[in-house]
Amino acid sequence: MSAVRLFGLGALAMLLGLDCLARLLRLVRARRGAPRGPLKEVLFFPVDITCVEHLLRAGEALPNSCPCPLPHGQETSFTRLLRHLLSASTSLDLCIFAFSNQSLSRAVLLLQARGVVVRVVTDTSYMAISGSQISTLRRAGVNVRHDMGAVYMHHKFAVVDGRLLITGSLNWTTTAIQCNKENMLVTEEPDLVQPFIREFQRLWDSNDPARHCPHG
Amino acid sequence: MSAVRLFGLGALAMLLGLDCLARLLRLVRARRGAPRGPLKEVLFFPVDITCVEHLLRAGEALPNSCPCPLPHGQETSFTRLLRHLLSASTSLDLCIFAFSNQSLSRAVLLLQARGVVVRVVTDTSYMAISGSQISTLRRAGVNVRHDMGAVYMHHKFAVVDGRLLITGSLNWTTTAIQCNKENMLVTEEPDLVQPFIREFQRLWDSNDPARHCPHG
Repeated sequence: MSAVRLFGLGALAMLLGLDCLARLLRLVRARRGAPRGPLKEVLFFPVDITCVEHLLRAGEALPNSCPCPLPHGQETSFTRLLRHLLSASTSLDLCIFAFSNQSLSRAVLLLQARGVVVRVVTDTSYMAISGSQISTLRRAGVNVRHDMGAVYMHHKFAVVDGRLLITGSLNWTTTAIQCNKENMLVTEEPDLVQPFIREFQRLWDSNDPARHCPHG
Repeated sequence: MSAVRLFGLGALAMLLGLDCLARLLRLVRARRGAPRGPLKEVLFFPVDITCVEHLLRAGEALPNSCPCPLPHGQETSFTRLLRHLLSASTSLDLCIFAFSNQSLSRAVLLLQARGVVVRVVTDTSYMAISGSQISTLRRAGVNVRHDMGAVYMHHKFAVVDGRLLITGSLNWTTTAIQCNKENMLVTEEPDLVQPFIREFQRLWDSNDPARHCPHG
């Protein structure tokens, strides 16, 4: 009888012990600041300019060291942003007020050349401004629509592969990246990503030129 | 002996059953889209203007119905924003490029009058622009510092009680709220809130006028 009781109590103790151990491990993980759940990252700007050729020419045969005078091999908020964008394998939906930075334009063109489906919604008034990369993207075959229903289409967000949201105060301009105080938030949290996916689709559909064509 | 065995097995079955039930409940909760973990909310703009007097005069003796001609009793992204701000009980740290909306200014003054510690960092060039609420806040005793180290202090974020982050593309202007395509993200997720708390403190400290006084 004592053996059976011992077995019963032993099993109970083992279960309780395992449960306590699991809770303890979760607590230690949380205390250590280990990431909990989906990716969440905050990027602040301005950043010092560094060489990003290694990111934009990945796959090309490059000389061992890039001869440009910029600092090399440094990770900044801007290289993080580029890495997140270049992680796209199927789609990039970009909703951007101002877009004049050439490295970001090269990144989008690289994705387009790789077969990633790129869609861009931008502000009407900004589109034609000198230095805007929108016409460069259009010439390369990127699908661009401009917002026709607002004073400003002031969003600055991107959704990568319907999975990763990049959003914040930062327009895609060199001044914003190198001179302004700006923030960007990068997350895979579905409760935050999904509303932006729906907002992009709303803007994409409502700014379809076919719907606004006078000859219908 | 069978009673003891029954007890042991019964206890085991109960523990396993409870564990399964807990897992099942979590699964159902997740499937139903119930909020997982800390608050996460996305607000989109523009919104139609509605009456917000009931929010800004809470505690005051109001007539049963507000006589103003605006629609009443509607919840919009703007009323959600006001509610989140007015939930402050100890502190509001605001880092904002452009601030001209009067309802938001009244909300900040209401918090200040309630004893909430309000600190504002804003952009130097925007501060003196006609319609800016910054001078109104200053006259009411709100602590305001202007950024002296960037081309633009382009952030648009607020931290409520060191707990709740409100950030996005939206400047605190009436045009942004009523006419532009804009977004705001509201979250209590510590991994997102903490970097913004540190950024605010960095900007607050580095723009201390005492540090820039020529007579030092």
